[in-house]
Amino acid sequence: MADVAAKERKILVAVDEGEESMHALSWCLRNVISENSKDTLVVLYVKPPRAVFSALDGYWFSADVIAAMDKHSNDVAECVVEKVKKMCKDLHDVKVETRIEHGDPRDVICQMTEKLGADVLVMGSHGYGLIKRALLGSVSNHCAQNVKCPVLIVKEPKSTSTKN
Amino acid sequence: MADVAAKERKILVAVDEGEESMHALSWCLRNVISENSKDTLVVLYVKPPRAVFSALDGYWFSADVIAAMDKHSNDVAECVVEKVKKMCKDLHDVKVETRIEHGDPRDVICQMTEKLGADVLVMGSHGYGLIKRALLGSVSNHCAQNVKCPVLIVKEPKSTSTKN
Repeated sequence: MADVAAKERKILVAVDEGEESMHALSWCLRNVISENSKDTLVVLYVKPPRAVFSALDGYWFSADVIAAMDKHSNDVAECVVEKVKKMCKDLHDVKVETRIEHGDPRDVICQMTEKLGADVLVMGSHGYGLIKRALLGSVSNHCAQNVKCPVLIVKEPKSTSTKN
Repeated sequence: MADVAAKERKILVAVDEGEESMHALSWCLRNVISENSKDTLVVLYVKPPRAVFSALDGYWFSADVIAAMDKHSNDVAECVVEKVKKMCKDLHDVKVETRIEHGDPRDVICQMTEKLGADVLVMGSHGYGLIKRALLGSVSNHCAQNVKCPVLIVKEPKSTSTKN
């Protein structure tokens, strides 16, 4: 069996703003990352596309509203990065990178997994709400089907009564 | 971060007779199992239900044919167990169990995962042929949706051009 110290894996964890992502990252740190290894942990947050049109009343958002939404989106991204950094602060030998990308998470996660040559992709199983999941399909299911590397799907214990 | 030596996880790997399962087991041994831990590795092989009726010509199989099919099924199970034992022979500190169960793999894998209190379920993404997968749904997708613990889906590199 391979010497633990020889491992040089790139572990990609895709997170969103939900708590389940942080649980998935935490599980990964406890069960996948080897402290004495040369693993690289890349934590990826994908900012979803900005909605510019309100489906509810049929009006285009004004420039002010769009600017406010963009600021909110950036604030959320920064908040996620802060949570990740806090969770990873005790990792000494493992290199940690955080990346913020923009687009449809299903596509961006798959693309980044290939681009970075990830050895494993880790993600939670929920992330975009019940309705979106029903309409669009689960992000984790899409990624599990489309990436080539192993995929680890970590669920938050309390949410397991709902099917993915 | 938790001391590696303190880990006492139960890692369940569901295998079938295909090579992708062995690849998934091998990946698990290299990337999940900690040599210095007290992990327990449980390798589960589920014998699918016996077909007793030939859909092609509408005849029930004779007792002789059924006996031959049962013997073949047992031979396949033994062959899988041998492959697993060979792969795990160099694990010294890790306890390895092999289990053979019978039934619909989707259900049995989920049930055994809960019954054994597995900390993680590991499986390949294919296993029952293209047609069965189209008709019945993927075993790994079903299990990924229905078990509560983290699920690691490991694909065999050459088969990634086909969607799961």
